[in-house]
Amino acid sequence: MSNDARERILTACEQTIARSGIRGFRMHDVASAAGVSIGLLAYHFGDRNGLLQAALDHVTERAEDRARRSPEPATASARLSALLSSEFGAEPEVRAGSTAWNELRALAVFEPAQAVAVARSTATWQQTVQQLVAEAVRDRGSDLDPAATALILTALVEGLSGRWLTGQLTAEEAQECVSAALRGLGL
Amino acid sequence: MSNDARERILTACEQTIARSGIRGFRMHDVASAAGVSIGLLAYHFGDRNGLLQAALDHVTERAEDRARRSPEPATASARLSALLSSEFGAEPEVRAGSTAWNELRALAVFEPAQAVAVARSTATWQQTVQQLVAEAVRDRGSDLDPAATALILTALVEGLSGRWLTGQLTAEEAQECVSAALRGLGL
Repeated sequence: MSNDARERILTACEQTIARSGIRGFRMHDVASAAGVSIGLLAYHFGDRNGLLQAALDHVTERAEDRARRSPEPATASARLSALLSSEFGAEPEVRAGSTAWNELRALAVFEPAQAVAVARSTATWQQTVQQLVAEAVRDRGSDLDPAATALILTALVEGLSGRWLTGQLTAEEAQECVSAALRGLGL
Repeated sequence: MSNDARERILTACEQTIARSGIRGFRMHDVASAAGVSIGLLAYHFGDRNGLLQAALDHVTERAEDRARRSPEPATASARLSALLSSEFGAEPEVRAGSTAWNELRALAVFEPAQAVAVARSTATWQQTVQQLVAEAVRDRGSDLDPAATALILTALVEGLSGRWLTGQLTAEEAQECVSAALRGLGL
């Protein structure tokens, strides 16, 4: 499968979940939205769980891509801030990705296969954050523990994401909260 | 309605959502589990949205009760830590309450009436946290902004809650992360 088709399918998957929620989710709708056959979908992603795992990983990868696309900030601290803030934004694709992630995490409370997928994708993201925290801590001569701090920051972003998606915060307010947390922790 | 009946109905409501998720939620099941008629339920809580709002508020109140039941810690900082940590625990009622909250927040992304209920209940909880932060900040001569810090801490707890409910963290690890955040912020 070309990268284009893969991208189109995963984007369609996120939009489908973001529109109707995970409970009404059907692979058939994703195939229709992406303009591919259900057979091609199954061939490349396996079953529903395979597709949902790929969609979770895709949301994470895209947030990292967005953070990288902006002009490279000079310090690890600024890169960390950009990475965490990239989870919020006015672009429809950002909201769709975040909504899909939120739905899959809610489902994971009840479905062990989804819990494994969410844990794997979360661990990858948290590892990226931890590397930036470790750099920022070295730059600043701070005594923060990078692993513990990465858990704080990624869990904070997940909590803020729920606030943002339910209209309790704007994307800008969520980003400002991330900045305040980084300042508060001395990063 | 006696406080006993109210407590029994709201506990049954949380357990019903925690067992089967919000999508299959029926007021009838709550009435059965609580041993009351569906008419009594409707009479006291109004419609489904009224019951769900009461259940959200009940989860928040119970966490505050749990924090108060433990021996009163001497400092505002210790009370803040106890309040935030009371969201996690091995007791089935703690997990049921948290699971119900998590489901209602996920639903709120798609249902405006639930978004209003979640926002109201969240604001109440965050206000309680903010008062304790303000005290702790005074005690410590810190220059943290209590409102901004209360947002950081409550969003962090919500994010950790998602990790805990999906088996990515134990209750103790979530509590340790709250403590690390408080220490990192100098509280």
